[in-house]
Amino acid sequence: MKPRSMNDEENGRPPDPVDWAVIDVVDYFRTVGFAEQAIAFQEQEIDGKSLLLMTRNDVLTGLSLKLGPALKIYEYHVKPLQTRHLKNNSS
Amino acid sequence: MKPRSMNDEENGRPPDPVDWAVIDVVDYFRTVGFAEQAIAFQEQEIDGKSLLLMTRNDVLTGLSLKLGPALKIYEYHVKPLQTRHLKNNSS
Amino acid sequence: MKPRSMNDEENGRPPDPVDWAVIDVVDYFRTVGFAEQAIAFQEQEIDGKSLLLMTRNDVLTGLSLKLGPALKIYEYHVKPLQTRHLKNNSS
Amino acid sequence: MKPRSMNDEENGRPPDPVDWAVIDVVDYFRTVGFAEQAIAFQEQEIDGKSLLLMTRNDVLTGLSLKLGPALKIYEYHVKPLQTRHLKNNSS
Amino acid sequence: MKPRSMNDEENGRPPDPVDWAVIDVVDYFRTVGFAEQAIAFQEQEIDGKSLLLMTRNDVLTGLSLKLGPALKIYEYHVKPLQTRHLKNNSS
Repeated sequence: MKPRSMNDEENGRPPDPVDWAVIDVVDYFRTVGFAEQAIAFQEQEIDGKSLLLMTRNDVLTGLSLKLGPALKIYEYHVKPLQTRHLKNNSS
Repeated sequence: MKPRSMNDEENGRPPDPVDWAVIDVVDYFRTVGFAEQAIAFQEQEIDGKSLLLMTRNDVLTGLSLKLGPALKIYEYHVKPLQTRHLKNNSS
Repeated sequence: MKPRSMNDEENGRPPDPVDWAVIDVVDYFRTVGFAEQAIAFQEQEIDGKSLLLMTRNDVLTGLSLKLGPALKIYEYHVKPLQTRHLKNNSS
Repeated sequence: MKPRSMNDEENGRPPDPVDWAVIDVVDYFRTVGFAEQAIAFQEQEIDGKSLLLMTRNDVLTGLSLKLGPALKIYEYHVKPLQTRHLKNNSS
Repeated sequence: MKPRSMNDEENGRPPDPVDWAVIDVVDYFRTVGFAEQAIAFQEQEIDGKSLLLMTRNDVLTGLSLKLGPALKIYEYHVKPLQTRHLKNNSS
């Protein structure tokens, strides 16, 4: 179930992260308060498909982020985005 | 259940670690005998929310601490703080 | 069950990855869009037998790849190749 | 159950590792044939309390020891010391 | 059950890996086609007792080997040697 089309988002990103390009991932983390960390997603070439495959350990050790922000990025953003994607695609 | 208000603590830290800023985390570890290690929490920008998300492995490998103090910091402080937070917020 | 002989493949690689030499592994990843990453398989001397033994963690941390491509290489290629090999050899 | 007092040991170490200072830990490993590796316990400030908290992985990766001796130090010394401590304190 | 005495092996190594010195471990890997990798076992001082304690992860990350050969060394040699040792000593 994808309730919204790709172009009806105010922020310009496709509604489902699976369709995000690397720049959309970077833009997302800038928007939610992790401007300093967002660049790491670009350096590691994380697009939406990769983002949906990331485990907690990948976020904490694979992006060379400081531990404090990394813990919050996974718990408050990566995990919820993955859960939402799974729900939207499970029926 | 949060039995005490944010300002009735003698040490000046909010009672629930979830409300601690990075400086409160640093101050806590200084107070409990890990002055030398406390600075690592500042370097990794660990606030109370991040502290509550830390696993044993995060403490041992993500803070560049010596192994001996790191083992005790996790077992005698981080784990009990997490347990207490969970209990205080579970009813 | 190996339905095709070693030489009837258009791409010149043996049909079962277990028979791939290192150069076949490199060639495979070049063909499927990971030209930049393919060289890492050569550097680590990954032949088909080794490829079939790789876990997700091996792909993410043992090849010095950027995290984004590494996640997709495991999920979309290494894992399916291993599954296909297992199916073809299980009866 | 602590059957012996702290001072009746010939080797001068408290009978229960939980009471060992860092120097006792170092002294123990010197005595049992790991003189070269003992210094690593000092460098990482491992006292008896920390020693009792160490996992196999901590011994193998947190002390910068060569793999061969590390494997034997864990299996033949750290693990038995932990087991003995648990037995002596479980009734 | 140790069906053969220590001296009836053609290759000069004790039949049970538990009795191998570091040089026997090195010699074994040279003999089975991993001459280039054998030296790593010497550098890490792996004797037979340590070899029998090695996990897959120890072989892949603790010997500084290239990933391809490391995967095969564990799967085709270390694991079978451990299994054989267990069988020979379990009744």
